[in-house]
Amino acid sequence: MSVTAAQGFIAAGVKAGLKKSGNHDVALVVNQGPMFTAAGVFTSNRFKAAPVLWSQQVLLDQSIRSVVLNAGGANACTGAVGFADTHHTAEYVAKKLSALGTEVGAGEIAVCSTGLIGERLPMDKLLAGIDEATLSLTESGGDDAALAIMTTDTVPKKCVVTQAGFTVGGMAKGAGMLAPALATMLVVITTDAVIGAELAETALRAATAMSFDRIDSDGCMSTNDTVLLMASGASGVEPDAQAFTEVLTQVCGDLAQQLIHDAEGASKDIKIVVEQASSTQDALLVARAIARSNLLKCAIHGEDPNWGRVLSAAGTTQAIFEPDQVDVAMNGVWVCRNGGLGDDRSLVSLADREVEIKVLLRAGSAEATIWTNDLTADYVHENSAYST
Amino acid sequence: MSVTAAQGFIAAGVKAGLKKSGNHDVALVVNQGPMFTAAGVFTSNRFKAAPVLWSQQVLLDQSIRSVVLNAGGANACTGAVGFADTHHTAEYVAKKLSALGTEVGAGEIAVCSTGLIGERLPMDKLLAGIDEATLSLTESGGDDAALAIMTTDTVPKKCVVTQAGFTVGGMAKGAGMLAPALATMLVVITTDAVIGAELAETALRAATAMSFDRIDSDGCMSTNDTVLLMASGASGVEPDAQAFTEVLTQVCGDLAQQLIHDAEGASKDIKIVVEQASSTQDALLVARAIARSNLLKCAIHGEDPNWGRVLSAAGTTQAIFEPDQVDVAMNGVWVCRNGGLGDDRSLVSLADREVEIKVLLRAGSAEATIWTNDLTADYVHENSAYST
Repeated sequence: MSVTAAQGFIAAGVKAGLKKSGNHDVALVVNQGPMFTAAGVFTSNRFKAAPVLWSQQVLLDQSIRSVVLNAGGANACTGAVGFADTHHTAEYVAKKLSALGTEVGAGEIAVCSTGLIGERLPMDKLLAGIDEATLSLTESGGDDAALAIMTTDTVPKKCVVTQAGFTVGGMAKGAGMLAPALATMLVVITTDAVIGAELAETALRAATAMSFDRIDSDGCMSTNDTVLLMASGASGVEPDAQAFTEVLTQVCGDLAQQLIHDAEGASKDIKIVVEQASSTQDALLVARAIARSNLLKCAIHGEDPNWGRVLSAAGTTQAIFEPDQVDVAMNGVWVCRNGGLGDDRSLVSLADREVEIKVLLRAGSAEATIWTNDLTADYVHENSAYST
Repeated sequence: MSVTAAQGFIAAGVKAGLKKSGNHDVALVVNQGPMFTAAGVFTSNRFKAAPVLWSQQVLLDQSIRSVVLNAGGANACTGAVGFADTHHTAEYVAKKLSALGTEVGAGEIAVCSTGLIGERLPMDKLLAGIDEATLSLTESGGDDAALAIMTTDTVPKKCVVTQAGFTVGGMAKGAGMLAPALATMLVVITTDAVIGAELAETALRAATAMSFDRIDSDGCMSTNDTVLLMASGASGVEPDAQAFTEVLTQVCGDLAQQLIHDAEGASKDIKIVVEQASSTQDALLVARAIARSNLLKCAIHGEDPNWGRVLSAAGTTQAIFEPDQVDVAMNGVWVCRNGGLGDDRSLVSLADREVEIKVLLRAGSAEATIWTNDLTADYVHENSAYST
């Protein structure tokens, strides 16, 4: 059910011809209220796509009525004409929704796009898709909406949690350009909880920091990353801040795991746990450096417990640790102790899809976990002809 | 001729059985004087291999008699026993060389190792190889020495320049873990010029900064990188600092290009030129970020001019530029102007092995060039079973 599991939301996903495959490619999610609280977290890439620049403005008053999303084109690096296309899209959705009853302004419509960077969107197809989506809006449209935002995803990503009388549900897309400070992804989360704008903002930041910001599939940061939270208040239930944040974090964590499991060409999900760091920041620094070692990612693909590549990646950081005090375990076998030889690497089995690499820095008590994938020939093949 | 082209040097390369292939794997280079000036540049990785730690100490007095090199094992992350192995190796070489005539101490012997991290060296084989190498030292041994340091290299890397009465010659190895602040490589350069320790040091730092430090094949920094310069003074010619630095830079640049051309699995050599930057540091920051985008490297492999991946990589840096003023050319076609659409990407041909990506930041007049490679299925295959 994804974004329509929470009360107060209708959605649609239609086939507008933006994808060469002919699959669903335009989605519309509408909040029917009574509240229209919203929050957003966006890519930190300095080349922000037109829809990101637009949605950031729209979210400034912490309230939106609807979000329109398309696959088949990122509308990134398209300059003023690309921004005008996004603006026109929002105006068009506002006009269509207004025709259904309540008056809606373009400033209440967020826009998300995903696909190739550096091409203009085929606006005729997109607007025709919006026509159809507006007519298709239903309380069970969440599944079609989740289909419409897929790009190289092989499965739609959805999650719903109901607890203590309120529901949080969401959909996500993202399979490549999955990197830090938000993966390359679009995520829409809806809730019928009664929450104010301040809680929406702080809960979303806290939840994304511990979920989408802790996955790094290929080290590549997108121009279009967007995570939106929309709250209708339709359940009438007002959870306390902690309870709401916990459920939201659970949904974000579940969706983030689904992204890693479906990453382009990946055959392994690698959990990198850095413990005994002097700070969380140091733990993240080391974990991210390890997550970005192409050599290590190739080794894991080959089920080769080549732990030297863990250390050589950690050694490029300025995190606080003494090289001769660092321990490394691969799937529970301490192959490196005190920066040197540990247990026999032949004891390590890397046959399962999930692989855990644990690093003890012995510099404090902070820890952090980053999820990444292996590097495979399939990843190369999938990304060597993306735009052609 | 590599390291024996300059007068005053003898060398050998032998098959000691450290490589499973049975190929040459132990090399010895000996300076016969009359001078013994030396300088070294080493990896900035905090996990430094035992031979790096040893050679850094040996180089402190800016004089060495010989360097012994082995492939088939990096002797990195091997702890105190690994360091003892390196120490013993240097003592053994000193004893063997002393037996030939002049008394030599272990503190005059640099050691370099390359191969798998986290395994001890088979010392019996290594010492037997040193026995044989000592007996094989000749003025034409440079070619065998260059063979002996190869790992996944498909060809030996050698370069000799003679100018104004003095010669600079060198050998290099390195095909993976080729990254910044020194690629994964071993380089030995010899010269018969009469140069002092200060010039040896400053010239080597200047030459490596503009050559080995400007290639980044796979973003992975090694534990064993070493570049050694040994000067015999045997030509009797004393070049001025500028002339010597120029020739040394030429040799280093040539060897660095040979490394990029032979990088693991690579099918493209990608020259990333960043111009109009506010500083050289900013230009390097942007060029390195682009050089490390797996998505871009896959696209180039597929001959797909996906310039959005150039911008999305540049946008992760904090270099000074305005996103809407950046231009990008691929092989001379300005596919991106002012951060947006430029000329038609279909005009770009990426069929040749060498690909040039030019980025104008419009923030100043500094520039820098980084060389990298494409990311290929062959790279994945070669690195997925390295230690097994």
